[in-house]
Amino acid sequence: METGTLRHVNEEGTVKLKPIGTIHSPFTDLAGMPIQPAGAAGVQGTVEVFPEYEPGLKDLDGFSHILLLYVFHRSQGFQLQVVPFMDTKPRGLFATRAPKRPNPIGLSVVQLDRIDGCTLHVRNIDILDGTPLLDIKPYVPDFDSPTQVRTGWLERVRQAVGEWQSDDRFR
Amino acid sequence: METGTLRHVNEEGTVKLKPIGTIHSPFTDLAGMPIQPAGAAGVQGTVEVFPEYEPGLKDLDGFSHILLLYVFHRSQGFQLQVVPFMDTKPRGLFATRAPKRPNPIGLSVVQLDRIDGCTLHVRNIDILDGTPLLDIKPYVPDFDSPTQVRTGWLERVRQAVGEWQSDDRFR
Repeated sequence: METGTLRHVNEEGTVKLKPIGTIHSPFTDLAGMPIQPAGAAGVQGTVEVFPEYEPGLKDLDGFSHILLLYVFHRSQGFQLQVVPFMDTKPRGLFATRAPKRPNPIGLSVVQLDRIDGCTLHVRNIDILDGTPLLDIKPYVPDFDSPTQVRTGWLERVRQAVGEWQSDDRFR
Repeated sequence: METGTLRHVNEEGTVKLKPIGTIHSPFTDLAGMPIQPAGAAGVQGTVEVFPEYEPGLKDLDGFSHILLLYVFHRSQGFQLQVVPFMDTKPRGLFATRAPKRPNPIGLSVVQLDRIDGCTLHVRNIDILDGTPLLDIKPYVPDFDSPTQVRTGWLERVRQAVGEWQSDDRFR
């Protein structure tokens, strides 16, 4: 058994990551974007994986949906209480998907249409053009989709999520 | 419109993150762990958020499930092709959830039982004790749970995921 090993966290207590690609979408501005893939139905984009990582894409085309982890590269700083796009009251940051987070990592589930070399053609994308990609994982309902779910403050508004758009509050 | 802004990515092309807490679980060794929350049904653990982030936990208790993003702090390096625990053939890394990734970020959906101050009591946890926490997001089916899903190489084995355990291949 290994104890006390804390790999990837350096002496300063930080973790250094390096983007593995870039996400492209029709969205060039934070304002006016769909909120979450549910509001981006049909919107197409591409994920360009840097060539050195191409061997890691093998077998991915068997999956209809993938999880993208990326950097919220247009947001700055963070706030621990935010008024989300879909609400009028301040909420705890970790109870929201707002981009101004201590660690500005975004997560979206998108549909994978096809892969050409290093290019993934995806659909239902709610991500800004030029976003640095950190990781791709296969979406597996058994892992990622629990049943009997409660969604707190979002309960009242989630039916209408497809109708909401972002504004510039999280620049 | 802002163009060309790439916040959080420094001149070296790296992104620096800082853990916001620590995850505690009964699992102290990489070998013999459940694979994914589906195999960790009922296993209890805690997420200790550092005190300075406590205000961000407001409203989170309304959600039954949360997404945890964390560092795979016991894995070293990465391989672009891996033989997953649930298979016998090498697969492209990004078509797996294996921990040895270019950016060693793990993602798990766990059940949230309750919050006491900075401590989240969670269930169905498949994460190693001492894991550095990067982010917490509310789990929202409308965002995170697509329908009509295909799961590639996992299709044949996913029914049995609860019966699999890890070994030490990803140290």
